Amino acid sequence: MTIVTLTTDFGLSDPFVGIVKGVLLARAPGATIVDVTHGIPPQDVLAGALVLRQAVPFFPAGTIHVAVVDPGVGTSRRPLCVETSRGLLVGPDNGLLSLAAPRGDLRRVVHVTAERFFLSPRSTTFHGRDVFAPVAAALASGTSAAELGTEVADMERLGLPSPTVEARRIRGQVIYVDHFGNLVTNIDGETLARLEGTPSAIVVGGMRIPGIAASYAAVPTGSPLSVLNSWGLLEVAVRDSSALKHLGAGVGESVVVES
Amino acid sequence: MTIVTLTTDFGLSDPFVGIVKGVLLARAPGATIVDVTHGIPPQDVLAGALVLRQAVPFFPAGTIHVAVVDPGVGTSRRPLCVETSRGLLVGPDNGLLSLAAPRGDLRRVVHVTAERFFLSPRSTTFHGRDVFAPVAAALASGTSAAELGTEVADMERLGLPSPTVEARRIRGQVIYVDHFGNLVTNIDGETLARLEGTPSAIVVGGMRIPGIAASYAAVPTGSPLSVLNSWGLLEVAVRDSSALKHLGAGVGESVVVES
Amino acid sequence: MTIVTLTTDFGLSDPFVGIVKGVLLARAPGATIVDVTHGIPPQDVLAGALVLRQAVPFFPAGTIHVAVVDPGVGTSRRPLCVETSRGLLVGPDNGLLSLAAPRGDLRRVVHVTAERFFLSPRSTTFHGRDVFAPVAAALASGTSAAELGTEVADMERLGLPSPTVEARRIRGQVIYVDHFGNLVTNIDGETLARLEGTPSAIVVGGMRIPGIAASYAAVPTGSPLSVLNSWGLLEVAVRDSSALKHLGAGVGESVVVES
Repeated sequence: MTIVTLTTDFGLSDPFVGIVKGVLLARAPGATIVDVTHGIPPQDVLAGALVLRQAVPFFPAGTIHVAVVDPGVGTSRRPLCVETSRGLLVGPDNGLLSLAAPRGDLRRVVHVTAERFFLSPRSTTFHGRDVFAPVAAALASGTSAAELGTEVADMERLGLPSPTVEARRIRGQVIYVDHFGNLVTNIDGETLARLEGTPSAIVVGGMRIPGIAASYAAVPTGSPLSVLNSWGLLEVAVRDSSALKHLGAGVGESVVVES
Repeated sequence: MTIVTLTTDFGLSDPFVGIVKGVLLARAPGATIVDVTHGIPPQDVLAGALVLRQAVPFFPAGTIHVAVVDPGVGTSRRPLCVETSRGLLVGPDNGLLSLAAPRGDLRRVVHVTAERFFLSPRSTTFHGRDVFAPVAAALASGTSAAELGTEVADMERLGLPSPTVEARRIRGQVIYVDHFGNLVTNIDGETLARLEGTPSAIVVGGMRIPGIAASYAAVPTGSPLSVLNSWGLLEVAVRDSSALKHLGAGVGESVVVES
Repeated sequence: MTIVTLTTDFGLSDPFVGIVKGVLLARAPGATIVDVTHGIPPQDVLAGALVLRQAVPFFPAGTIHVAVVDPGVGTSRRPLCVETSRGLLVGPDNGLLSLAAPRGDLRRVVHVTAERFFLSPRSTTFHGRDVFAPVAAALASGTSAAELGTEVADMERLGLPSPTVEARRIRGQVIYVDHFGNLVTNIDGETLARLEGTPSAIVVGGMRIPGIAASYAAVPTGSPLSVLNSWGLLEVAVRDSSALKHLGAGVGESVVVES
């Protein structure tokens, strides 16, 4: 059983995702297809890259991860197949695959050029259907990454903003907002450990939150809090509600941790 | 083939659901995973419990139903595995499982304590990934409910408001609003049968609807109607439109049936 | 492995889709279920028919396609099973299946009357659960279309507006708007080929777009463009944004191509 995951900005209201699955199942009948999400904001390559980075480690080794957030579809941007120590990534060369494939995990980056694996004719607007799904189906059916094209040195890489650490202050920012309105920052547990003393306040959107809570339920309903979340990142939440709504602070907003 | 269903408030825009499936498939490779819904309103345990109650009877006996609407994640609220005459329910002990597991159907309620089945390390914010998915995978792989922890007498139970019946009047309320804007009440067919005479009017949101229709299409487009719906409950709808929008009546709104 | 696809207006926030899958898997345990979409706008039979038409060709021959957009549920509108050269279609006789089953592809149209295949009791509001899912499960389990009821000559058919072609002008309209806000027109590549000369302007929503672009990325971010899309239809888009929002032009809006 080969697992093929899908991470896209296609949404769920059109037949796009269903069509991709039709192509996959027509060419790789035994594949198990799993949606990571199709709710990446349209054309938001960074959000897609973060989501893919979070999801990949929880799938079995050898899983094929297809990701399509592809504002350059139909141009010369390259289709890629990336082999890492964890599995195979298939998608456009625009940074989308890069956070899930740090250089240390790379085994092979292939510029996919073997058109015999593509659908024909090939549109200029839907390579999820015409290129990435059939390439994933080929991989699921036993084709090796090397057979798909030409090995290249590396891919487009996205830079995530890094937090800065002073003695008693960490300056970071919100990098992702989830469905609950929780604000995920770029400050991870290791960075927090470099602070002198215990975190005593998280400052975000004009609000001072006292320290880091053990869980969402550590404060009263409607109160803001911060936690070290399931991605290992500092997150700002409002209990039983939305920090996005309460704090009006989205991606890019400054977050300062003080001890 | 073991079926594992998922009912959560995770939404579909983040990788949360995909990650849960990755954990399930990594640990129970043959499982068939079915989404009941991930659209439970955030933290709305009652809505989740109602949805689970409606869905469970339509799955084969032995299906494993995972439900996660879990505002108390990371606190001491217990993880449960509940065995009923229909299948296995896995989720937090906050009432979420209770409507699908009436006391008469209970075989066993297990407080899940065997941490060897959990992911390690375990976050305080995502027990869907770290506790409930791996426990469901263990069940799907042949672990018995009894092996998961300590049997307990019962679980947290939610109370649904009951309708009151007078001779020629039933007083109930809206307990659920669906995607179409249909208003589902707590008045079932048996309760309606206790009314003296035939229902002649349903009063809701300041509107009098004449009697109970045979189908949505029994009235002109844009007109309100009531039907006995697919859950066996009295429902208020507006043909080809939304009763939620037209009547401005949501969960908790009074609904009176008169004969 | 039989594939059963689902195309509905059920949305994803209720248990409706999950329940349909429960019925399918209870009666056809080996089926592979694929969601085409559940995001058809409520009661929008034409949108459902277009989506089904686009999706069906990408699934293997023999796939069973269930479609439910069914404002007449509970009335005398007929349930149908339609056999085409590509597969089987199951749904209400209200035009929903018609665009995916042009007369030239028809093998058999069956009015489904064999109630032994239905769930019992049968609601008047949820034939997706009570009629169409169990009928699809019967087909997936080897029942032939002919066993389901009475062969009939044809079905309700929807008319799509046709574009009109003058020497140097094609007059069409928007027939579908996708998740990205792209405006899909009824003008296909063959119709464009009938224009004298090369398309020099697409006029829509008070805007003149110069010619047909090779891809979305052929114009600067925020600029409108037109492309021949993955459905073979002329589409109006705004790069990295929404034409729906920018042009304020939805379904039914006039689109004129001039050479």
